Amino acid sequence: MRIDGLQYANWSEKIFRQLREGGVDAVHVTIAYHENFRETVLNFEHWNRWFEQYPDLIMKGLGVDDIDTARATGRTAVFFGFQNPSPIEDDIGLVEIVHSLGARFMQLTYNNQSLLATGCYEAEDAGLTRMGKQVVREMNRVGLVVDMSHSADRSTIEAAEWSERPIAITHANPHDWAPALRNKRDAVIRAVTENGGMFGFSVYPYHLKGKSGCTLEDFCEMIARAAERYGPEHLGIGTDLCQDQPDSVVEWMRVGRWTKQIDYGEGSKSDPGFPPMPLWFQDNRHFGNIEVGLRATGLNETEVAGIMGDNWYRFFSESFAPSTKREEFGSGN
Amino acid sequence: MRIDGLQYANWSEKIFRQLREGGVDAVHVTIAYHENFRETVLNFEHWNRWFEQYPDLIMKGLGVDDIDTARATGRTAVFFGFQNPSPIEDDIGLVEIVHSLGARFMQLTYNNQSLLATGCYEAEDAGLTRMGKQVVREMNRVGLVVDMSHSADRSTIEAAEWSERPIAITHANPHDWAPALRNKRDAVIRAVTENGGMFGFSVYPYHLKGKSGCTLEDFCEMIARAAERYGPEHLGIGTDLCQDQPDSVVEWMRVGRWTKQIDYGEGSKSDPGFPPMPLWFQDNRHFGNIEVGLRATGLNETEVAGIMGDNWYRFFSESFAPSTKREEFGSGN
Repeated sequence: MRIDGLQYANWSEKIFRQLREGGVDAVHVTIAYHENFRETVLNFEHWNRWFEQYPDLIMKGLGVDDIDTARATGRTAVFFGFQNPSPIEDDIGLVEIVHSLGARFMQLTYNNQSLLATGCYEAEDAGLTRMGKQVVREMNRVGLVVDMSHSADRSTIEAAEWSERPIAITHANPHDWAPALRNKRDAVIRAVTENGGMFGFSVYPYHLKGKSGCTLEDFCEMIARAAERYGPEHLGIGTDLCQDQPDSVVEWMRVGRWTKQIDYGEGSKSDPGFPPMPLWFQDNRHFGNIEVGLRATGLNETEVAGIMGDNWYRFFSESFAPSTKREEFGSGN
Repeated sequence: MRIDGLQYANWSEKIFRQLREGGVDAVHVTIAYHENFRETVLNFEHWNRWFEQYPDLIMKGLGVDDIDTARATGRTAVFFGFQNPSPIEDDIGLVEIVHSLGARFMQLTYNNQSLLATGCYEAEDAGLTRMGKQVVREMNRVGLVVDMSHSADRSTIEAAEWSERPIAITHANPHDWAPALRNKRDAVIRAVTENGGMFGFSVYPYHLKGKSGCTLEDFCEMIARAAERYGPEHLGIGTDLCQDQPDSVVEWMRVGRWTKQIDYGEGSKSDPGFPPMPLWFQDNRHFGNIEVGLRATGLNETEVAGIMGDNWYRFFSESFAPSTKREEFGSGN
């Protein structure tokens, strides 16, 4: 089983076919960065049309049953997520609404301060806000996973501890391996995994040691070391593949509507676009390379299978259904 | 089993308890008249909060499994509908979106011309529009029932014939029994029922012979005659109970934002509000009266059980799931 914990491609029949060629059974796709609720609905609609257009390649993913169906019918199950809480605006009631529409992951922040928490590019990290605490509880209730990939350290640790269900960092790498601002320090990864959460390793070149020149061996050795440190069962892949996107989309991701100036994020004025992907992971067809690389590190078959997909499968199975815990209505925190 | 094909009450714990006292296993409730999509989302949210607040009385209804669960746990399953296509605005993609959010019925018109068809108060009825035909097909595909309760004759007959799945008139009575503008002529009821659809009898006084003074015997005799004419298996109850609503809501229903003048609909300047309900159906606790009245007409037990709920149950079971018919994408009509 192969599951990718995050992609944001410029989707097309070509990429859907590459998902099949790479044997990707399920993928979490970003459908919103800075879109408000109404704009996000249009993105759901866009995916609904793709599911109609390419019923032999992809299908909507709401629960792990859909991964089973996808595998049985040779398709990829697509699970939706947001990289920012913009789609819920300032309304906690929209958490259940977006879950009904199929959202299964939501980042509490995308680099900047949000209404809920602090992003990893802010100078000060005040942790979860009042609304943030309420929204995490509501996400727990309906089955929307808290994703802290772009959040700051304190906010992430607080989210891992405050959340009643395991959370995720869907796409990042350890900071002590590649010191990008977006990569995660030991205490952060520990807080997430010790609370039952998942950490997905990114192939986005700015998160790799040596960037686009990072070798498969280096990448997989890093994963093997993380398995020793955090337990292999908490690890997965979250490639952050942003295939075929024009630079205008990189700009939307980084700048949204929050500034009138250009913010280059991890890029620079001379290098504003997406960096080239490493040779061993050009697109979804290369998923098998990672599996081969992981075996070569000495991880055993169960561990490799876990990291390639079984761990996400287990996490999905525990995360997307409404909580069975009966809440007293109105018992706030 | 007791199922009500339409209510629009000013919902409260009191009314939810009355649903239970009346043994109502499922009810189709109106959650939008003239609300646009964004406003309708707030109405979904409002119901989500009620489901949280009153988990022992009500639960969200998406399919007949939910009616089974509701019966097994002593609750009422609530199914959502719109009395007008305002929530989908001018976007066919919103049909699947509102279905994902739980909508199961949508009227193509509410008295006036809509983007889809003609309402029963218009002078001219041009039938289904271009968009109307496309939207009916999309409603068929996703499992959203076409409801023509407030539509004009030609539009209704065309919808019954154009739709690939049975449609409904959830709440009205035969025009030859009570000649209200909203009641339905024989050819209209015939078109709906002969195509497998359902007709729900209304207790709204303006649709009754003798209005608020209509007797239970008269009402049930009318149903028995309709059973002879259209077949008892196509008939149900759709009370149109609008309990505890202030006159401002009647005005919203009739006037929305489409005119700056007051339209009194079936009322008048001297009588602008809701008329008093007949003594034998004051609220949901009186559901049993209709059952007793139907038995007294000589209808047999199977027929009575069908009209009280089994027929809606069968119709719901066939109507709310996505179509299994595989469409060629882009094959328009």
